[in-house]
Amino acid sequence: MIKKLLIANRGEIAVRIIRACKEMNIETVAVYSEADKESLHVQLADEAYCIGPTLSSESYLNFTNIMSVAKLTESDAIHPGYGFLSENPDFAELCEECNIIFVGPSAESIRKMGTKDVARETMKAAGVPVVPGSEGLIKDEEDGKRIANIIGYPVIIKATAGGGGKGIRVARDENELVKGIRVTQKEAETAFGNPGLYIEKYIEDFRHVEIQILADNHGNVIHLGERDCTVQRRLQKLIEESPSPALSAELREEMGQAAVKAAEAVYYSGAGTVEFIFDQNNETFYFMEMNTRIQVEHPVTEMVTGVDLIKEMIHVANNDTLTYTQDEITFNGWSIECRINAENPFKNFMPSPGKVEMYLPPGGYGVRVDSAAYPGWNIPPYYDSMIAKLITYGQTREEAMDRMKRALDEFVVEGVHTTIPFHYKMMSHNVFREGDFNTKFLEHYTIMEEE
Amino acid sequence: MIKKLLIANRGEIAVRIIRACKEMNIETVAVYSEADKESLHVQLADEAYCIGPTLSSESYLNFTNIMSVAKLTESDAIHPGYGFLSENPDFAELCEECNIIFVGPSAESIRKMGTKDVARETMKAAGVPVVPGSEGLIKDEEDGKRIANIIGYPVIIKATAGGGGKGIRVARDENELVKGIRVTQKEAETAFGNPGLYIEKYIEDFRHVEIQILADNHGNVIHLGERDCTVQRRLQKLIEESPSPALSAELREEMGQAAVKAAEAVYYSGAGTVEFIFDQNNETFYFMEMNTRIQVEHPVTEMVTGVDLIKEMIHVANNDTLTYTQDEITFNGWSIECRINAENPFKNFMPSPGKVEMYLPPGGYGVRVDSAAYPGWNIPPYYDSMIAKLITYGQTREEAMDRMKRALDEFVVEGVHTTIPFHYKMMSHNVFREGDFNTKFLEHYTIMEEE
Repeated sequence: MIKKLLIANRGEIAVRIIRACKEMNIETVAVYSEADKESLHVQLADEAYCIGPTLSSESYLNFTNIMSVAKLTESDAIHPGYGFLSENPDFAELCEECNIIFVGPSAESIRKMGTKDVARETMKAAGVPVVPGSEGLIKDEEDGKRIANIIGYPVIIKATAGGGGKGIRVARDENELVKGIRVTQKEAETAFGNPGLYIEKYIEDFRHVEIQILADNHGNVIHLGERDCTVQRRLQKLIEESPSPALSAELREEMGQAAVKAAEAVYYSGAGTVEFIFDQNNETFYFMEMNTRIQVEHPVTEMVTGVDLIKEMIHVANNDTLTYTQDEITFNGWSIECRINAENPFKNFMPSPGKVEMYLPPGGYGVRVDSAAYPGWNIPPYYDSMIAKLITYGQTREEAMDRMKRALDEFVVEGVHTTIPFHYKMMSHNVFREGDFNTKFLEHYTIMEEE
Repeated sequence: MIKKLLIANRGEIAVRIIRACKEMNIETVAVYSEADKESLHVQLADEAYCIGPTLSSESYLNFTNIMSVAKLTESDAIHPGYGFLSENPDFAELCEECNIIFVGPSAESIRKMGTKDVARETMKAAGVPVVPGSEGLIKDEEDGKRIANIIGYPVIIKATAGGGGKGIRVARDENELVKGIRVTQKEAETAFGNPGLYIEKYIEDFRHVEIQILADNHGNVIHLGERDCTVQRRLQKLIEESPSPALSAELREEMGQAAVKAAEAVYYSGAGTVEFIFDQNNETFYFMEMNTRIQVEHPVTEMVTGVDLIKEMIHVANNDTLTYTQDEITFNGWSIECRINAENPFKNFMPSPGKVEMYLPPGGYGVRVDSAAYPGWNIPPYYDSMIAKLITYGQTREEAMDRMKRALDEFVVEGVHTTIPFHYKMMSHNVFREGDFNTKFLEHYTIMEEE
């Protein structure tokens, strides 16, 4: 049994994991960089240790220091949260070597899903629909041209080691393709040390719809429905919801089955998300990638299913069977999440770190706040600008939106700028309210007038 | 359609009602006493007006001033919350005369349920079980003795106009009865201007279990299951939960049916609560009283049913039919509410008003906070000491309790004493955890060591 768990992360997700542990009677160990000394996760954990200076590479990504704290505190397990070490197969391996449970899938599953062309081929073999494209990596420019001619322009060039919006480029004709291959290859070699590229058909207007899955070490895999994360700005998700306003019951079921197949194909264990490109016009969907960790937007799934995903992750890490069978998963109501970032939405979302002078989160029925903010907190400028997740629940999408509006309206954050006014406008925007939009929503519509 | 609503209340329930109105696009008018100028409900409402000095009788109970504000602001309706004017039939009548919707039942329903012997007889006639006792009021001491001999000691002497723990006395023999009748009669005459008394069998060990009902003006009455409010101190509820750990499915159904009958018998409209004495040893229940208003503990019902009770009240006031039929009401999981009072639990719950220096409510999954507190708020000493309701939700009672513990643990209120430490101890108390206790729990067990 896991008795003590180290959280190798910071911010709201560290707080989220500490909360689940407390409810499970598991002792918690927080780690922090020098910039995070006064953080809420440090205050809430049973023990807390500094693991290095501000720079992530020297603290939150520092294998040695994190593992030393785990050993020193006799922690049984490490939860990596999201970002940082959460999808690092080498770290998962190191945990195994050190006899510490990594709360997540095996290094092999992470590696398979992290190498994009391998993931693509694995999915194809498992019968999960993938976007038409190259079989594995392209050999050279000529091979790229040949494939692009078969699948038709526009195409997208992707570095197999890429991620987070890097190593990716759209080509609308042969000229752009040749140029794109050269530039992306160079970029990939520099950024990831791996020049491998593959090509896919570029789907212009799509929705980002993803399926949450849970798998244990005893062969059980279930899905918990979808999240729609179509509202994005520069590939960063801003608003997520469950269910999706665009999915029919049949497609939901099909997509859920596909996600379960995807997880099974890599012998997945724990919580994971299979992301799909959903082509609304043609009612078809394609595998995009799998995130082999808990996601920022997991709360909306918790709200509509009643399943505590962090607790399930810990159960699975503990070698327990899943608490739920697929039949026991039911979906009730509607949930929306707004990411509240310390950014100025009137100035092109410029980061706005600094001291939170006044802080009062909203409350009442159907409102959930996941945050590490508190009055007097100094938001460090070095990490993610997200300071809170505001999640609402309602019987219908309309109620969830109206509740979000009133919750945003009463959310007090003084001293720094936040994206609260942006979200408030979004909740009143008739296109958002109608639910009929794609990932280019924020390119098509001006939400905020610049000051 | 109600377009503008005046909230004739303060504190968390005023905030609760404002929140519901905002989500329904109804404009809100707050009223406040001079002591409540800086209150959160004043800040959150669209408009706010001072209705008099600190003393409730001159402000929150001031018919004329409240009605003047309603007229001045062209409010369509008044929601009375709980306490203050919520069960005052004269105020409900005044609203009707002034052509303003009173969000609650008719003056007649309030009057019938407010006069305890009438309520008792009405319930008997409707087939709702009542505690064995006198038929109507007792005539004199001799009549009282005769009845007590028939039903057997101990008995309880109750003023028909009583309430809030006043005008009530237990007698264990004839001596105590005679003395009790004299004292209670005098007390009732002084306090309520009505010396009428009745007698009931005194049930020593019981649980307080109540049924939430909803009724519209079109003849529909449904129940939303029970709340168990057995943890009380000096007749004040401290912890409430839904469902009750003591009720079987059959008893729940029976009690629900009885509550519906009770509501039908007085042509009830809106949200109401039928309170029962539940004799755990004999698995029998008796009508105690009906509260013809929203109750403090309504959130636990909202958490397990998904029904927004304040919104339903407003729909009914608007003459809409109920949103739900009985068949559509389902019960999921478990919810507990702890009343956080500004009192020192280490000093016999002595009130602790004053300035809230630091305030950070807990958050995360399954946690709801209904409160009017904020950092810097000066808690006035003149009103109710409750400053927040902390509500948790879990799949099981155990999860709801464990979540409550962690939420209490992270709840920061500095500057005043609160009952947070008391609740934390309760959530760890093995008798509470086992769920097998009665209203004398806090007399039998010492939870807090006095400092």
